Amino acid sequence: MKKSNYLKLYLVTDSGLALGRSVESVVHEAVRGGVTVVQLREKEASSRDFYNTALRVKEILRGTGIPLIINDRLDILLAVDADGLHIGQSDLPYEVARRILGPDKIIGLSCDNDEQLLKANQYEDLDYVAVQAYGTQTKAEADHPLGPEGVLRSKQLTRHPLVAIGGIHLENAAAISAAYADGIAVVSEIMSAADPQKAAANLLQEFEKGRK
Amino acid sequence: MKKSNYLKLYLVTDSGLALGRSVESVVHEAVRGGVTVVQLREKEASSRDFYNTALRVKEILRGTGIPLIINDRLDILLAVDADGLHIGQSDLPYEVARRILGPDKIIGLSCDNDEQLLKANQYEDLDYVAVQAYGTQTKAEADHPLGPEGVLRSKQLTRHPLVAIGGIHLENAAAISAAYADGIAVVSEIMSAADPQKAAANLLQEFEKGRK
Repeated sequence: MKKSNYLKLYLVTDSGLALGRSVESVVHEAVRGGVTVVQLREKEASSRDFYNTALRVKEILRGTGIPLIINDRLDILLAVDADGLHIGQSDLPYEVARRILGPDKIIGLSCDNDEQLLKANQYEDLDYVAVQAYGTQTKAEADHPLGPEGVLRSKQLTRHPLVAIGGIHLENAAAISAAYADGIAVVSEIMSAADPQKAAANLLQEFEKGRK
Repeated sequence: MKKSNYLKLYLVTDSGLALGRSVESVVHEAVRGGVTVVQLREKEASSRDFYNTALRVKEILRGTGIPLIINDRLDILLAVDADGLHIGQSDLPYEVARRILGPDKIIGLSCDNDEQLLKANQYEDLDYVAVQAYGTQTKAEADHPLGPEGVLRSKQLTRHPLVAIGGIHLENAAAISAAYADGIAVVSEIMSAADPQKAAANLLQEFEKGRK
C-alpha cells in the first residue's frame, strides 16, 4: 500500500494569487494551518526566479516533514533537491521523469480522462494521480463527470492515491473526501485567503469530517 | 586550451521563424550547409513539445559530430541526453547547472556586460561565453560596445571561447570573426532563409574569410 497520508491538504502555489504577499510567506502561514504537501507552480517565472523561490520555500519547509513538490520543472527539482515532481499530460512523459529521478522522488500525474487514468495504472511507481474535482474543466480532453461522483469514479478506476483539484472550498471539501479522495488540492482558497493559516485549518477540518 | 572549433557556425533555432517548416527540417538543411553546433531554443513550447522536438533534432544530428545544445531547460537536456546547455543570466546559476550535469556536458553562458564576463572567468570549466554582436541590445544590463570593437573587447576580457550573437549576417560575419570571435551565432539568417543550406554555407565561408 502506497503512502497517501501526506496528500490530505495539498497546497498548489500561484504567486499571482498571493495578494502581493510572497509565496513563501503564504506557505509559512499555511503550514501552521496544517497543509500536508506544497507544490510550487510557477509557469511564468524565469528559471532563476523559480529556483530562488524554490530555495526559499524549501527553507520554510525544512524540518516540518512536509514534502516540496515542483510543478513540471524537473530541473528546478534537481537544482534545489526538492522531494517530488508534479507533471501533467503536456509535461515530460512519466517514464522519462522517473528514469531521471530514480525511485525515491515523489511523482504525481494529472489525468484528464478515464483513458489517462487507466494508462497511469501501468506506472507501478507513480505516487499519486490528480483529477479535476469541480471548476471550469478547461482541458479539452476532460470527459469524466465532476464533483464527488467524478472523484468516486476516478478512485474506482485508479490503483494510485488520488488528489482532487479545482474548485474545492470549505463548502464542498467534506463531500470530496467522502468520495474517497486521498487529498484535496487548493490554490486560491489558501493563496488568496486573508488568513492562510485559518483557511488551511478549516479545509483540513472539513476534509477529516468527510472521512468519518 | 579549450576546444572551440565546434563553435564556428552556431545555429540557434526558433520555430516561430521557420516559415512554417519544422525545426528539424531546417536543422537538417543547415547541417548540410556546414553549421557546427545547434542550440534548441523553445521559450514558448510545453515541456512535452520541447522534449519531442529535441528527440527529433537529436536524430537529425546523430552521427554528424555536431553537438546539440539545449537553451535554459536542463531537464530537457537530461531527458534526451543532449550534449550541452546554454544559459543566460535569468536561468539556473552556472555552478548549479555544472553540479547537476557533471564535467562532461558543454555549458555556455550569455554575458551582457563586462562584470558578467569577468565573473565568468571564475568558472574554470565553463565551455564558452556568448556576447551580443549587433542588434537591439534589448537586455537592460548591456553596456559594452557593439560590433567588432565590442567583440574584440569582450575577447580581451574573457578567458573562455567566445560566441557572438545578434544581428550577424553575410555582410558583417567576416568582420566579427576578424575580431577574434570563436564563433558566430545566428537565428533568422538560417531559420528564415529560403535555402538554409546555402545560407549556412555562405556564413561559414565569410567566417573563415575573416579569420585569415
